[in-house]
Amino acid sequence: MPRVTVYYTRNCPYCRMAKAYLDRHGVDYMAIDVGSDRKEAEKMVELSGQYGVPVITVDDEVIVGFDAERLNELFGTAKGEEIFDVLIIGAGPAGLTAAVYCSRKMLKTAIVSENIGGQALESWAIENYMGYRMVSGADLMRKFEEQVRTEQNIHIDLDRVQSLGREGESFVAQTVGGKTYSARSVILAQGKRPRKLGVEGEERYLGRGLSVCSTCDGPLFRDKVVAVVGGGNSALQTAIEMSKIAREVHLVVRSTIKADPAYVKQYGERKNITTHLNHTVSALHGNGMLTGITIRDGRSGKETTITLDGVFAEVGWVPNTDFLGDLVPLNDQKEVIVDINCTTGTPGIFAAGDVTNIRTKQIITAAGEGAKAALEAYAYLTR
Amino acid sequence: MPRVTVYYTRNCPYCRMAKAYLDRHGVDYMAIDVGSDRKEAEKMVELSGQYGVPVITVDDEVIVGFDAERLNELFGTAKGEEIFDVLIIGAGPAGLTAAVYCSRKMLKTAIVSENIGGQALESWAIENYMGYRMVSGADLMRKFEEQVRTEQNIHIDLDRVQSLGREGESFVAQTVGGKTYSARSVILAQGKRPRKLGVEGEERYLGRGLSVCSTCDGPLFRDKVVAVVGGGNSALQTAIEMSKIAREVHLVVRSTIKADPAYVKQYGERKNITTHLNHTVSALHGNGMLTGITIRDGRSGKETTITLDGVFAEVGWVPNTDFLGDLVPLNDQKEVIVDINCTTGTPGIFAAGDVTNIRTKQIITAAGEGAKAALEAYAYLTR
Repeated sequence: MPRVTVYYTRNCPYCRMAKAYLDRHGVDYMAIDVGSDRKEAEKMVELSGQYGVPVITVDDEVIVGFDAERLNELFGTAKGEEIFDVLIIGAGPAGLTAAVYCSRKMLKTAIVSENIGGQALESWAIENYMGYRMVSGADLMRKFEEQVRTEQNIHIDLDRVQSLGREGESFVAQTVGGKTYSARSVILAQGKRPRKLGVEGEERYLGRGLSVCSTCDGPLFRDKVVAVVGGGNSALQTAIEMSKIAREVHLVVRSTIKADPAYVKQYGERKNITTHLNHTVSALHGNGMLTGITIRDGRSGKETTITLDGVFAEVGWVPNTDFLGDLVPLNDQKEVIVDINCTTGTPGIFAAGDVTNIRTKQIITAAGEGAKAALEAYAYLTR
Repeated sequence: MPRVTVYYTRNCPYCRMAKAYLDRHGVDYMAIDVGSDRKEAEKMVELSGQYGVPVITVDDEVIVGFDAERLNELFGTAKGEEIFDVLIIGAGPAGLTAAVYCSRKMLKTAIVSENIGGQALESWAIENYMGYRMVSGADLMRKFEEQVRTEQNIHIDLDRVQSLGREGESFVAQTVGGKTYSARSVILAQGKRPRKLGVEGEERYLGRGLSVCSTCDGPLFRDKVVAVVGGGNSALQTAIEMSKIAREVHLVVRSTIKADPAYVKQYGERKNITTHLNHTVSALHGNGMLTGITIRDGRSGKETTITLDGVFAEVGWVPNTDFLGDLVPLNDQKEVIVDINCTTGTPGIFAAGDVTNIRTKQIITAAGEGAKAALEAYAYLTR
């Protein structure tokens, strides 16, 4: 067996997934909490060149992030083909709810997803999921996951679908991990991914000061200077939380702040946030690690350089529909078009949650749509 | 002050509402749990001629059920008119979720509903509300209600809207309790009501052996013989629960059982349920109190009489849209027609939950739609 070490922080859902993956595949490993141990944190940054968790070392190899593809290559085993009633792609609030409903209808169900919880994992504090006055995204998704795991008939695979097509009566999905899933119906619930800043060098600095998961990487920036880019609810929440961890927070907003009044109020009470309205990030600076950014005033064109340690991009989301080709009708924003009952333009394919063209992007709404998609899939299969 | 007594059972949401109403209006009363005290239960039945809770006595007057109209006459005070941003009609999962979302958008919000919790109150056990593995409808709705009560800007009124129209820029609602609400937008979330059996004498026996709320009235039928009419999830759940309370349960099903396999399995394990497929109730018998029913075989026409003490009707639901006139487009089942974002054919009016034409009727879906309706109302008001 190789020598495996997982560097993690306590609130980081991808870290939890990485550890769960290794547990499931019977891999022994050492887990180091770099959120509480500064020395080990420094060691991890040195080892990986990364300000981001998880970092996994396998003998001399350093794996950055929860890289399901690489972990599958190292530890995975390909499965034989079987035909499912329903294949659910994605395991955020929509996919997990759909799974529970499918199971209660005794459908043979597979969920394929890179992580369990989706975007919801990255919410600091959720105050509007009915039934809970205040819960973190990670805790709520843990409850969803537990509920799925108590159900029968659900096969869960931490992997990523890279193609979906038809073969006769079935839909066939290929995964990055090299597996094939055949199913009589499909529920698309693979959500969205973070939009890029669109700045030169972005890929290079990802994990080296640039982060798209503040709940994961936030604790690594204690007493440092960071910027949060964006002006919506996610950006404000991140700015509020980072202002409690970092010494100084710069909030860079393209136009004006467009967030819920409740967040605006909390944000207004924080003393160490400097706000730059009408600004975008025009350059990233550094030498291996990010050390600064240049921001540009959209009205005057004037540029300002800020010396800092980290940048959290909270500038919106793009639907994960690239692998669908023309199998399902999409709108001009590449979202899956659904009707009020979550059926798509392709019989046998249903969709729910943030991957669809429904305007509201909320956990409770995604969950409600997941229930619809499952009940419609059941009706389709029994027709 | 009049002498007031409330006869209640512990799981009965209407009883809780009745007591809350009296508390809110500063009325002193005595509360008697007729679920645990058989003598008092007999006394209540004698006094009211009713096998149903709550029963409220006010001096010599006996009020059956949570009769908001009569209680308003006795204890209510009419309120002056003010203009709300949003009027939410109904306080089930959809209405309560909408209220929380409206409040977080700082909208001045009124909810008018006869009860808090809607149909969800009447579910014995909910196993598919994500976040809770198992919860009773009443408990879940209590959590929803608590969440609403911690929010700002929400005015809650236990009353019933009996008309809704336009006056200039505003929508104006009149309530049974004699109040007028004006609002710049409306969210319809008033759900459905139980469908009637369509048998002669039905009104007369309601509360005198015939019940539409098994969670309320079930405990009064300990060791007795009852029938449950219906073949869906609600009917099976009621049959399962009543088989634990009553001596014998007759399940009368119009055609065949159409329920989730999970319920069918539990039902199959109960020994004291007799099932009558392809049967309908053709007559109710009794003398003041229900003492029996006649059921009719839909294929042969053959009739059978069953001696029993109680009947629980679980034969479906009718939308509460009678008071809407032609203000909002309805479908042929009188459901409010919505699009994927919960907007209706009438600008400024939004709808969510079971009152709409969405096929899935589930708590989590209603809640998700409530969030949509609120966010769309907010967008409408700020446009």
